[in-house]
Amino acid sequence: MSTAKARQILDMNAFDPRAGDAAASPLLRRRQENYGAASVLFYREPIEMARASGCWMEAADGTRYLDFYNNVPSVGHCHPRVVAAVSRQMATLNIHTRYLNPLIEDYLERLKGHLPAHLGNVVMTCSGSEANDLAMRIATRTTGASGFIVTETAYHGNTRAVTEISPSALKQGAPPPHVRTVPAPSRAAYGDDVAGGFAAAVAAAAAALAEDGHGVAALICDSIFSSDGVFADPPGFLAAAVAAVHGVGGLYVADEVQPGFARSGDAFWGFQRHGVAPDIVTMGKPMGNGYPLAGLAVRPELLTAFCEDVGYFNTFGGNPVACAAGLAVLEVIEESGLQANARDVGGYLGDRLRALSAHDPRITDVRGAGLFIGVDLGRADDPAVPDAALASAVINGLRDRRVLIGAAGRYGHTLKVRPPLCLSRDEADFFVEALADALAALPPG
Amino acid sequence: MSTAKARQILDMNAFDPRAGDAAASPLLRRRQENYGAASVLFYREPIEMARASGCWMEAADGTRYLDFYNNVPSVGHCHPRVVAAVSRQMATLNIHTRYLNPLIEDYLERLKGHLPAHLGNVVMTCSGSEANDLAMRIATRTTGASGFIVTETAYHGNTRAVTEISPSALKQGAPPPHVRTVPAPSRAAYGDDVAGGFAAAVAAAAAALAEDGHGVAALICDSIFSSDGVFADPPGFLAAAVAAVHGVGGLYVADEVQPGFARSGDAFWGFQRHGVAPDIVTMGKPMGNGYPLAGLAVRPELLTAFCEDVGYFNTFGGNPVACAAGLAVLEVIEESGLQANARDVGGYLGDRLRALSAHDPRITDVRGAGLFIGVDLGRADDPAVPDAALASAVINGLRDRRVLIGAAGRYGHTLKVRPPLCLSRDEADFFVEALADALAALPPG
Repeated sequence: MSTAKARQILDMNAFDPRAGDAAASPLLRRRQENYGAASVLFYREPIEMARASGCWMEAADGTRYLDFYNNVPSVGHCHPRVVAAVSRQMATLNIHTRYLNPLIEDYLERLKGHLPAHLGNVVMTCSGSEANDLAMRIATRTTGASGFIVTETAYHGNTRAVTEISPSALKQGAPPPHVRTVPAPSRAAYGDDVAGGFAAAVAAAAAALAEDGHGVAALICDSIFSSDGVFADPPGFLAAAVAAVHGVGGLYVADEVQPGFARSGDAFWGFQRHGVAPDIVTMGKPMGNGYPLAGLAVRPELLTAFCEDVGYFNTFGGNPVACAAGLAVLEVIEESGLQANARDVGGYLGDRLRALSAHDPRITDVRGAGLFIGVDLGRADDPAVPDAALASAVINGLRDRRVLIGAAGRYGHTLKVRPPLCLSRDEADFFVEALADALAALPPG
Repeated sequence: MSTAKARQILDMNAFDPRAGDAAASPLLRRRQENYGAASVLFYREPIEMARASGCWMEAADGTRYLDFYNNVPSVGHCHPRVVAAVSRQMATLNIHTRYLNPLIEDYLERLKGHLPAHLGNVVMTCSGSEANDLAMRIATRTTGASGFIVTETAYHGNTRAVTEISPSALKQGAPPPHVRTVPAPSRAAYGDDVAGGFAAAVAAAAAALAEDGHGVAALICDSIFSSDGVFADPPGFLAAAVAAVHGVGGLYVADEVQPGFARSGDAFWGFQRHGVAPDIVTMGKPMGNGYPLAGLAVRPELLTAFCEDVGYFNTFGGNPVACAAGLAVLEVIEESGLQANARDVGGYLGDRLRALSAHDPRITDVRGAGLFIGVDLGRADDPAVPDAALASAVINGLRDRRVLIGAAGRYGHTLKVRPPLCLSRDEADFFVEALADALAALPPG
């Protein structure tokens, strides 16, 4: 099975519209009729979802699920403070940023308080895709080069430009010649010297891009390598790769769309774990807790040069309602101590998962940072062999046990653990026990 | 002055950050510090805006402005029905579309009720830029060609791909070779036979793209040619150009981001004025009355083929909150008769503006459809000469008289009239009287 195919089936555990819908519900039929081939639904029998609060989602039939999948409602589903802020601002003023508004600056200054001082300008967009698309253009303008280096199962978004640097989005074919991929920073790929091996791979990709005449515009990495399977350790491993790219004049873009906003526990951003200085930081998903808000922070001189050639304006990006949502999210993270909670409960959860793995050889690795954890599943008879079918069975077994989760990674055998940051220890226990029970119900071999 | 430069200065009438900010307010200084070179503000002394309702916006100093600029809050600023729908849904469930939810299908079916039956699938995005980016990719996948034809002052959005087909966004340089521009469908460019002249220009562009090996992926037109200066007449003029593109195997993409959702009065979409059948319709801005919601409708077979190669998923696109906003917008348009109001008040407004032009030779043309009207300004001593400086002075004069408006077009001399669709005749009168007064205060010559 190709890795792309594995991801397609296993990350999504998706309803397959081609499998026939004789038994499809009227709602599912409407969905397929309206969405057509672009419909992507979780589970072979998709869930009709009705409401959500905190770490829990409730289906239309009343079943409640503990959400270990969704990293957008990061401070908790439908957090009342975010809802109130958005509702209030929507009733007051909802317009683009061509007028002055102190709320916008209040937000940006609070956001910049979490960022390195050298990233002094912020551009707000609607989606992480738009942010990464703009980051690519700024990198090309800055360097005069067109080449990009990404990991081999990376996902950075859905525009034409960004899809080219998102190998995991491709169902067939390969990225274009100006995009070079390197194996994700895993021990499987690089052995014990992840830092050195990853840096060498990045340097080789940079050399190849130079030789082909593309040059190196940027190394773009999701700072926790989410769709590659979650790789956070050892802390600092990214530094050598960043140095290699800087050494040939390329930029380093930290894609914080998935790890950003305190999820990794020890730091607010994933790149901080590695002690590196990005030229651009892109952000999105949890930024507005569901309100479409994303953006990038950049060294001002890069933005100044970019804006000499072409205007950039985003109609919805950073309007006062988006900023109200973003400000409420920062307030909740700070005032409720969610970064510390991600560290503490994430550490507890990791420990419990490692304890579980000691009793079940099919759990072959538990790794991550804070509340972003990858759990590898292997074959009982040969744990070194990734077992995507087992991951699929576990995902469905967890659904039956009221837990929502997905998989990721090159082989689709990594459970992607990323609950809301307000997760309690009791909820972590609920998950671990459900996982143990699901595994127990799946006889090895 | 280059046309790009003219647009930059005159469409925006922008605050110029390079002009020094000795007198800048503390808020303006914060803005410049946070946004850097990407800051785009209206007016040399930007307005701090505090709230808005219906057709009116209110500044922090209490000054109220009649909004003739903003086409996003199309059913009226902060419409209570949209606010209530968003607030309610945000407190209930705000998640991506990988779960089933009847609200999403209710919305899509109501939206499809306004679309031709052959456009059976809808893909929801956050922004018109994302929608046009995806439309370009579908066109390329469908045709195997990479060439695009657009008008010479077109604006279709801000991603890397879409900026390439947005000549008006360029501050210097020209679109890349796979993009061919044609003059906007004006009498100035094509004389009395706008249909024939525009079609011939499109056919010539298509031939040039074929000769250069790009082929024709699509003709993409804003159906009312907003940034070109608003060209709506004679109805039907687009048909010959669409036939020309279809004749060489290219698609026709109707960009309804600006004219769509009933603004043109006679029809719900701008393309309907021309009796043409788009292969793709893109939409955005007013779709959620300010909530980030956009998308495209497409022939299902095109989407099916596209999805064979690559997945498309948009995290925020069409989530239940966006759909609640979109549904409320459609309900308000339908139940409040806003399309009829756009036709009626727009017709009244056009008549009053033409009456004004009969007494002031500097108003050289009034044209448009419904509440999307272009008003050309020319020199008093030679009305055939576009007068961008006069447009700038009028925009500032109208600001002093409590009206917000902008300019567009190749020469920046076209006032772009596009108030909310709930505009009353009294408000239309207010605008016409303010315009007459502003012109009277500007001595000819």
